[in-house]
Amino acid sequence: MGSLTPYQRKHRVTVIGSGNWGTAIAKIVAENTASNPAIFEKDVQMWVFEEKVEISKESRHYDPSSPLCQGPQNLTDIINTAHENVKYLPGIALPDNLHANPSLVEAVKDSTILVFNLPHQFIIKTCEQIKGKILPYARGISCIKGVDVNEEGISLFSETIGKILGIYCGALSGANIASEVAQEKWSESSIAYDPPHLDSKAPSPNRSPSASSENLVQFEHKDVSGQLSRVKLQALPSEFPPVDHAVLKSLFHRPYFHIRVVNDVAGVSLGGALKNVVALAAGWVDGMGWGDNAKAAIMRVGLLEMVKFGEKFFSATIETRTFTEESAGVADLITSCSGGRNFRCAKLSVERKQPIDKVEETELNGQKLQGTLTAVEVNNFLKKQGMEDEFPLLTAVYRVLTGAMSVEDIPSYIER
Amino acid sequence: MGSLTPYQRKHRVTVIGSGNWGTAIAKIVAENTASNPAIFEKDVQMWVFEEKVEISKESRHYDPSSPLCQGPQNLTDIINTAHENVKYLPGIALPDNLHANPSLVEAVKDSTILVFNLPHQFIIKTCEQIKGKILPYARGISCIKGVDVNEEGISLFSETIGKILGIYCGALSGANIASEVAQEKWSESSIAYDPPHLDSKAPSPNRSPSASSENLVQFEHKDVSGQLSRVKLQALPSEFPPVDHAVLKSLFHRPYFHIRVVNDVAGVSLGGALKNVVALAAGWVDGMGWGDNAKAAIMRVGLLEMVKFGEKFFSATIETRTFTEESAGVADLITSCSGGRNFRCAKLSVERKQPIDKVEETELNGQKLQGTLTAVEVNNFLKKQGMEDEFPLLTAVYRVLTGAMSVEDIPSYIER
Repeated sequence: MGSLTPYQRKHRVTVIGSGNWGTAIAKIVAENTASNPAIFEKDVQMWVFEEKVEISKESRHYDPSSPLCQGPQNLTDIINTAHENVKYLPGIALPDNLHANPSLVEAVKDSTILVFNLPHQFIIKTCEQIKGKILPYARGISCIKGVDVNEEGISLFSETIGKILGIYCGALSGANIASEVAQEKWSESSIAYDPPHLDSKAPSPNRSPSASSENLVQFEHKDVSGQLSRVKLQALPSEFPPVDHAVLKSLFHRPYFHIRVVNDVAGVSLGGALKNVVALAAGWVDGMGWGDNAKAAIMRVGLLEMVKFGEKFFSATIETRTFTEESAGVADLITSCSGGRNFRCAKLSVERKQPIDKVEETELNGQKLQGTLTAVEVNNFLKKQGMEDEFPLLTAVYRVLTGAMSVEDIPSYIER
Repeated sequence: MGSLTPYQRKHRVTVIGSGNWGTAIAKIVAENTASNPAIFEKDVQMWVFEEKVEISKESRHYDPSSPLCQGPQNLTDIINTAHENVKYLPGIALPDNLHANPSLVEAVKDSTILVFNLPHQFIIKTCEQIKGKILPYARGISCIKGVDVNEEGISLFSETIGKILGIYCGALSGANIASEVAQEKWSESSIAYDPPHLDSKAPSPNRSPSASSENLVQFEHKDVSGQLSRVKLQALPSEFPPVDHAVLKSLFHRPYFHIRVVNDVAGVSLGGALKNVVALAAGWVDGMGWGDNAKAAIMRVGLLEMVKFGEKFFSATIETRTFTEESAGVADLITSCSGGRNFRCAKLSVERKQPIDKVEETELNGQKLQGTLTAVEVNNFLKKQGMEDEFPLLTAVYRVLTGAMSVEDIPSYIER
């Protein structure tokens, strides 16, 4: 197969992050580099934040004679020897060609494709650490769900990464629970990837490319808040297969993990944030005992407001069908409103007649609900835009959270 | 309020059918005629197929001294005295202005709006009985779910009604369970209504109206199989408020039953049929224990095939957003894949390792699953069109039903 490709070089892939979702994605990527040797180098680097971990006596890896079991060991050593992330994805065998690397800079060096999969509070710090130390023509995929909303505007994590590193970064999001994907239960996901067309003169609507050297394109990127930033984007050397939708599909698609690649980065990212707000309303309505019809009605109205939000604030690039037809849209919404933690806690809060932060405390072991945070951030943003009335469901969720209205009032409130 | 309307006459409304869904809709309609006296006559007729019913000793209406409780009584007498359909919608108080009428011809006489809500096998016979005995300018709304698919083509029930009676008939469908609507649990529904524009010269894409007298429009109606039929449609006398989207909304919308009125009759009708086929696949996948992500993926793929089916076979009038944004589309699909009987029986058939017709027998008291029937009909139709391959999920459901493939094969089959 390798002899059939017209390209002299192969892509080297690094996954940055090794939590349960990071490790599950790294497993997929390593399986695919192994089965697509014409496009990818087989070995995949995974950056692991080093920590000491002890293999417990209950573990299938426990062997009193093994050096791994002589007290706490480096997590990277355990992963590279036992081929399991015993701390964050226990019980899942990882491919031998996946290498845990405790050095962030070493892990990303020489990689053409960087997959970002770490908690969003670490993104900026992590990117700052590798700035200038990656290949200038690398490409990124952000697996970080959601968007960063505040009063001033909305930032996509992929844009933040791209701006700091001076690279193009797409996004992966979908109806995925890490543990189910790791167990190879069938699911789907969406990748959004739409770099400026280096080889084409036709500019994308929100970019003004201008070739400043043979393989260097400087373009001005208007982000969603309307802010222009200049990004120098270097073209991939022609020895590499171009990073296009087909190559990304071969890197992420598995028989148990179906990928569709689209262009709409904002739509794919936005779905992952707003669905959590809708899931709260679905949980409340379900907790009221109003039945499946009412819950479906909330989801339908929520989907429409997600579409409208995208169209209002990302009008240059958004595509309605990302929300209505892709895994990152309607399917992720359905999953989140079926058994997601925002849905479950909201439902319990009605059933127990407790505030949702009380339920959060008792049910989530100190973790915070994403939906309640996002509901407040989105409301601050909508208020600032004077647009609360145009998003009655998103606004109703905020008002129920603050005690300004009751769940019983939601139907009449969203009827307006 | 009555004095404010510029119209001298009011609409008289009849509901044809009195099963649980028929009675639930009649309740809504009667509530709305009472609260919109400028547009509607208060009294609503409901045609009831007469039968003898005995009020049981457990009923709240049981009173040994009442004439209603001296042995079996006419169902219409019970409804008109006790204001409850004790047989088909027990426990629900009906408005006093809803009148059960055992005479079909009497019930429809002089009514300008006819609401059809009866099992589909009775439609043709019922319409034949009232043909020529209704107001020639009456308008219809069909609440009969789904469509009639066979090898030759697809008929909408609203079209069947319209053709036999020579009237225009729209459709109502949505994420609705009769008992929940009757209990006034909040839900939503869609009405589709798009009559030829009697007052306009611009023809609809699939109709060629030609005014043959001042208030009589003869138009040629091309149905979905491409067959042309001539329907003489009489304009509503100008003394009546025109039957438009606003009037239909005031007839069906309630605080607990939110209505959106659209133009796409085919889309609204088609959703109600195809969602049952998708629900079978969702049930199988759920029965396999593949989790919420897999189920959401099936629903997403199913929604796309519903859209594609509409676009292929109803290209003249279909609107994608009917499926992706309306209650009759995505919301009805969600409800059906949550707890609907097709979903439940399919799930049990995997869990019990039993054929679905065996589950149907033990779980449904002799009733038949709509989804399995529709899956076979749709497949016969697609085969005849040579289009099985273009609808892999609909085809996979058929193949699993016939034993030609297993549930495990669905993901790879729909991946193509």
